[in-house]
Amino acid sequence: MRYKAIVAYDGTNYGGWQKQKNAKSIQQEIEDAFEKIVQQPVKITASGRTDGKVHARGQVFHFDSDREIDFRRAVNSQLPEDIYIRSVEPADEEFHARYSAKWKHYDYLLVEKEYNPLLRNYAGFSREELDLDLVEKAKEVFLGTHDFTSFNATGKDEIEDQIRTIYRIDVVREDDYVRFSFYGDGFLRYMVRMLTAALIEAGLGKTDSEQLKAWLEAKDKTAVSLNSKPQGLYLIEVGYNTFLF
Amino acid sequence: MRYKAIVAYDGTNYGGWQKQKNAKSIQQEIEDAFEKIVQQPVKITASGRTDGKVHARGQVFHFDSDREIDFRRAVNSQLPEDIYIRSVEPADEEFHARYSAKWKHYDYLLVEKEYNPLLRNYAGFSREELDLDLVEKAKEVFLGTHDFTSFNATGKDEIEDQIRTIYRIDVVREDDYVRFSFYGDGFLRYMVRMLTAALIEAGLGKTDSEQLKAWLEAKDKTAVSLNSKPQGLYLIEVGYNTFLF
Repeated sequence: MRYKAIVAYDGTNYGGWQKQKNAKSIQQEIEDAFEKIVQQPVKITASGRTDGKVHARGQVFHFDSDREIDFRRAVNSQLPEDIYIRSVEPADEEFHARYSAKWKHYDYLLVEKEYNPLLRNYAGFSREELDLDLVEKAKEVFLGTHDFTSFNATGKDEIEDQIRTIYRIDVVREDDYVRFSFYGDGFLRYMVRMLTAALIEAGLGKTDSEQLKAWLEAKDKTAVSLNSKPQGLYLIEVGYNTFLF
Repeated sequence: MRYKAIVAYDGTNYGGWQKQKNAKSIQQEIEDAFEKIVQQPVKITASGRTDGKVHARGQVFHFDSDREIDFRRAVNSQLPEDIYIRSVEPADEEFHARYSAKWKHYDYLLVEKEYNPLLRNYAGFSREELDLDLVEKAKEVFLGTHDFTSFNATGKDEIEDQIRTIYRIDVVREDDYVRFSFYGDGFLRYMVRMLTAALIEAGLGKTDSEQLKAWLEAKDKTAVSLNSKPQGLYLIEVGYNTFLF
C-alpha cells in the first residue's frame, strides 16, 4: 500500500532534507523512526529537498508499506520534537510525492530595521525598511513562465530544463516581518531565496525591474550573486490538484 | 551616570534572567558583555526576573557608568545572537528598573489542536481548542485588585504583599496561536503562567468562574496546582509612566 504523508519541521538543527554524511537530515530522522515502528527499513520519497536550516509546514513524502497501523501517531512517538508528521493517508499506487506534484507554495519571512533575537532562526533580516511599492513593481518580472537559469544554483548537468512558472507572488507586511509568498509549478535550488533577495534589493532601491529583467534574460548562472539566508524560508504546501489561485 | 536599557532575548537556552550556578543566565551574559567593553565589572538591575525558557521583547534594566559611549552598539557586538539590546539611554539618577516600574505587559502564546514543531520553544500547547467565550467570562475574575497568593509560587517569606492589580487581559486567536495579553502593576513568580493555565482550563470547560473565584479567595498557596510551560511566556513591555490603557 502506498501512503502520502505531510510533515512539518524546524530545519534549524539539520543539514537539510536529504541524507548526508556530516549533518543530521530530516529524511534520516523520519526513516529511522519508521524503522523503529515496522522493524524493517522504510524508504521515504519527498516532494523535493529542502536545504539546511530551511523549515517546512507542509512537506510531502510517500512510502510503501503492507502494514495498516496508525502511522501518524506511531512515527511521531519516535520522532524528535522538531519534526512532526501532520497526516498519513492511503494514496493511489501511482501517487508520487515528487512527480505528482502540481504546485508548491513557499514563504520567506524578513525582519526589517530592528534585529529580533527571537526570530534569528526563523527569518531573514534587513536593517533598512523596504518600499513595498517598489517590490510590487519588481515582482511582475518574475511572474509567468521563464527560464530561471540566472536565479538558481542547479547545474545544467543536474536538470536540463530550468523553465518554471510562477503563478503568484504576495508580499505583505505583518506585525513582526514582511512575508513573501511564492506559488509556482516548481522551484529550483536556491530559487526562492535568490528571487527574494532580488525583491529585497528592489525594495531598497538598489535594483529595479530593468536590471531584474536583464538578469533573467541572461540565462546565465553567474549573472546574479544575490542570496538570502535559509533560516527565513518555509515550504508551506505542496499541491497535487489543479492550481486554484 | 545612570542608564536605562531595553533588551530582547530568546530564553530557550538559559536558566532564566538571574545569575545561577548550573545554567547560563541572561544577566550574566549581559554583564560579561559590558565588562568586555568597559574593562571593569558592571552590575545591571532588571525590572524583575524571568524564569528559565521565558522570553522577552522588552525587559528593562539599569546600570551606572561614567563612560559615554554607544553602549547599545558596543555591548551588542559582544552578546550572543539570542540576546539583543534594543536601546540604551541616559536616565534620572533616581530611575530604578524595578522600583520605578508602574506596569508590565506579558503575553502568553498557546498553540491549539495540532502540535507545531516550529513553535515548540515559543508557545504552550493544547490538544483541544478553547472556547474563547468561556475564557472571556473567566478572565473577569482576575481583573482588578486581588491577593494572588493562590496563583503564584512566591513564599510569604519572600514577599509579604501578594496583592496585585490586573488592569486588562486580552485573549485573541491569531493565525498560529491564541495570544493571552496581561497588563498589571506587577506579577508574582509563575503568576502569569498559572493565570493562563486557569484560563485555558476554563476555555476547555474544565473549570469555571465560581471555581476560579473560590481559588482566588482561598489565598492558599496549595489551592491551585495548574501551571503552563514557560516557553509560551514573553515579557513584552515594562512601563514607567502612568498606565494609559
